[in-house]
Amino acid sequence: APNAPGLARLLEEILAPAVQVMKAKEPKGTRDTEPFQMAVRNKAFAIIRATFDRHGAVGIDTPIFERKETLMGKYGEDQKLIYDLKDQGGEILSLRYDLTVPFARYCASHGVKQIKRYHIGTVYRRDQPNVNRGRYREFFQCDFDVAGPGAVMSQEADVLKVLTEILDALQLGEYRVKLNHRKLLDAMMAVCGVPAEKFRTICSAIDKLDKEPWEKVREEMTVEKGLAPDVADKINPYVTGGVAEASPNSVLAKLRKDSKLCAHPSAAAALDEIEVLFNYLRAMKCLHRISFDLSLARGLHYYTGVIYEAMLTTEDGVGSIAAGGRYDGLIGMFSPRSIPAVGVSVGISRILAIMEQQESKRGGVKGCPTQVLVASTAENSLVARMEICALLWEAGVNAEYLYEDSPKHKHQLEYAIKEGIPYIVFIEPSQKTLQIRNITTKQDDQVGRGEVCAFFASRLKVDASAK
Amino acid sequence: APNAPGLARLLEEILAPAVQVMKAKEPKGTRDTEPFQMAVRNKAFAIIRATFDRHGAVGIDTPIFERKETLMGKYGEDQKLIYDLKDQGGEILSLRYDLTVPFARYCASHGVKQIKRYHIGTVYRRDQPNVNRGRYREFFQCDFDVAGPGAVMSQEADVLKVLTEILDALQLGEYRVKLNHRKLLDAMMAVCGVPAEKFRTICSAIDKLDKEPWEKVREEMTVEKGLAPDVADKINPYVTGGVAEASPNSVLAKLRKDSKLCAHPSAAAALDEIEVLFNYLRAMKCLHRISFDLSLARGLHYYTGVIYEAMLTTEDGVGSIAAGGRYDGLIGMFSPRSIPAVGVSVGISRILAIMEQQESKRGGVKGCPTQVLVASTAENSLVARMEICALLWEAGVNAEYLYEDSPKHKHQLEYAIKEGIPYIVFIEPSQKTLQIRNITTKQDDQVGRGEVCAFFASRLKVDASAK
Repeated sequence: APNAPGLARLLEEILAPAVQVMKAKEPKGTRDTEPFQMAVRNKAFAIIRATFDRHGAVGIDTPIFERKETLMGKYGEDQKLIYDLKDQGGEILSLRYDLTVPFARYCASHGVKQIKRYHIGTVYRRDQPNVNRGRYREFFQCDFDVAGPGAVMSQEADVLKVLTEILDALQLGEYRVKLNHRKLLDAMMAVCGVPAEKFRTICSAIDKLDKEPWEKVREEMTVEKGLAPDVADKINPYVTGGVAEASPNSVLAKLRKDSKLCAHPSAAAALDEIEVLFNYLRAMKCLHRISFDLSLARGLHYYTGVIYEAMLTTEDGVGSIAAGGRYDGLIGMFSPRSIPAVGVSVGISRILAIMEQQESKRGGVKGCPTQVLVASTAENSLVARMEICALLWEAGVNAEYLYEDSPKHKHQLEYAIKEGIPYIVFIEPSQKTLQIRNITTKQDDQVGRGEVCAFFASRLKVDASAK
Repeated sequence: APNAPGLARLLEEILAPAVQVMKAKEPKGTRDTEPFQMAVRNKAFAIIRATFDRHGAVGIDTPIFERKETLMGKYGEDQKLIYDLKDQGGEILSLRYDLTVPFARYCASHGVKQIKRYHIGTVYRRDQPNVNRGRYREFFQCDFDVAGPGAVMSQEADVLKVLTEILDALQLGEYRVKLNHRKLLDAMMAVCGVPAEKFRTICSAIDKLDKEPWEKVREEMTVEKGLAPDVADKINPYVTGGVAEASPNSVLAKLRKDSKLCAHPSAAAALDEIEVLFNYLRAMKCLHRISFDLSLARGLHYYTGVIYEAMLTTEDGVGSIAAGGRYDGLIGMFSPRSIPAVGVSVGISRILAIMEQQESKRGGVKGCPTQVLVASTAENSLVARMEICALLWEAGVNAEYLYEDSPKHKHQLEYAIKEGIPYIVFIEPSQKTLQIRNITTKQDDQVGRGEVCAFFASRLKVDASAK
């Protein structure tokens, strides 16, 4: 049958793509990082690392997996979300779930008693992914922690200053850092009459106030969680009422006047600490970023002192972009003695998603780093284009040539425009000078071979450290 | 018994550390990255990324794990070294074994037909680790590949130029890039009379010539692998005899005069390609790094054209620090059509180990990035020290203060010396000026508060992009 080969090919074409898509899938809940996203990530990480450097923090890294027993018993119910490796003989391993437990293990492994360190790395959670809302099974965390002894609030102040410097430098938009103190929160609940065994569950209700109105939270407290209505009503003024707009010191002054609250020794001690902290933050010029907010009640299970959470005020529904606090019991879990610590975890993956959106509007970050396309319309011009590229590379200019013997003028121009390359150098073998076109302004300059590097040195940001 | 509590405590002290060491172990064959190693890594990666940027290459990343079926059947016998994840429901996953198969999967997933990309990431091999010789189960790879159509040798030249720029910039010491062509090697063996079915096994014998003398390799060929002695003797002049010292073009000229070899069509074609490549490398000023060496016969299973391997000539026993070649069949394995490609894999972990040794001698890289310790001997000086730190941070100076209310003079000085911090600023509350001590020269300067940033701007490399 004369048609059979054609039919076979047709069938192959119909079926092949389906087979291919099957085979070429990335794992569920993960994503590849494409060139533009990678450029955004590199930009963000450079800013973040520079901030840590400015504060004298050191970087560390740990393996992507740990011995399973290292992670066991550290995450409560979430332990079921840990990725285990298959038992192929030897140790039983699991992928790291966060950077905190590996940090604690690191301190014990290396006998570290005092450190100011950061760690940027991926962590793994076998959670239900929600790719549209940016929830992945593999995502980045960026932790900054100060572990070891220190004067009251001297480390908290440094951590909060680092956080505000990072958020300022990333230019994500306006943000504020909500701040509270675990002991103040506990004292407030005790003073209002919350029974001690209900502290945690009432906390988690309070923590919903940034998404839900008081009436709904009050209903959760009373109907669902069995809190006496008059107790709930006593909590109300502490956790609602526009604290966000008030200055941190005015909230502090108001609480200082609350004689019933201040009669509780933990409350008085916590307010003293917060006053010290605000003095330090004023000295470091970042107090204006702080909202002293008693409705911040998140993740209290291991925090022992000041807690905080940063959120963008410009983007709706983004929620927390960084959070942390003091946790004096956690780092010492592998050591016989405890190591006090305070830190912050910056939500890198969320921040990268925001930056990708902003940068794709701004056009400031390109996947393709090329600054100059070295072109020619002559036949067999590769050697000529390579020679000019080599000159530019040596001067630290990002340059490239097309991989064709005799590329067409139109093709080279289109490539430069498509990739956002700002300049084309045209080499004409008959002429001694090079023609340099600025793609944006369409201006052409004639420049001698010997002056081409100087031409770009004054017009582009070149890497002066290049050989 | 009055002694019992003391005995119990003694027993506890004896036993506790043993338990702790057990618990705090990193997985076998992996290592933590400590601050000094991290600083070296960041330095190396910055240099490598800048080189890729200069050539207009884009960066990508892929998840640390792939679907197991993506990796199956790609690594031959080494497949047994792949780390599988436990089946916890859902997809069956494995940790990536290299960056090449994920790249092929990436190209298919995103419909990429042409790309110049680099990828720096960790890979995982359940191999017998040899920590002393730098062989780990988790280690970095750095791959640079040009995939897609291109004029003969135009891409090979770019890849080799990138490789030499990276090795130059990393300043590891003298190196050379051995270069050969798979088709030339096959033709040479055919001309010498090696039976086609013995090509691979004879190749692997030839490849040992950088570690073993000809006599030993000849014995392997003849006794062990059954090659006729006269055939082995015909191979000898091609693969021994000081090619390393000869210029690439003189080796080429010598082979051109070998009429028997050149009568083989593959050999003639390969020599033509190599001649074109050498012209390009001369145009890009890196031909002097090349050794045209017919004894290079490594990893031939998927290479289809030019192959190369870089090694340091100064360090003994370091062996290969980068290797690559053209492999036109590999990238297309997830696509219905093949995508030609050429690339290089830089042995980052080996390079980092060398750099760590060099930098610890040189003292150019410190784990602690601090440039200025802001100190005072006054009581309760934290606010004063924080104010000066904030000024310095804003000016892009890396500064820190000790976390004590009233640190002692000696303690602050010792800290600066121990951490290699070049300057101390002393704040004396009674004086209007600050005293700045250069730790190396022991010179003291008196500087007004308003001039402190300018003082360091002229003396330190500060991050001008800081806010």
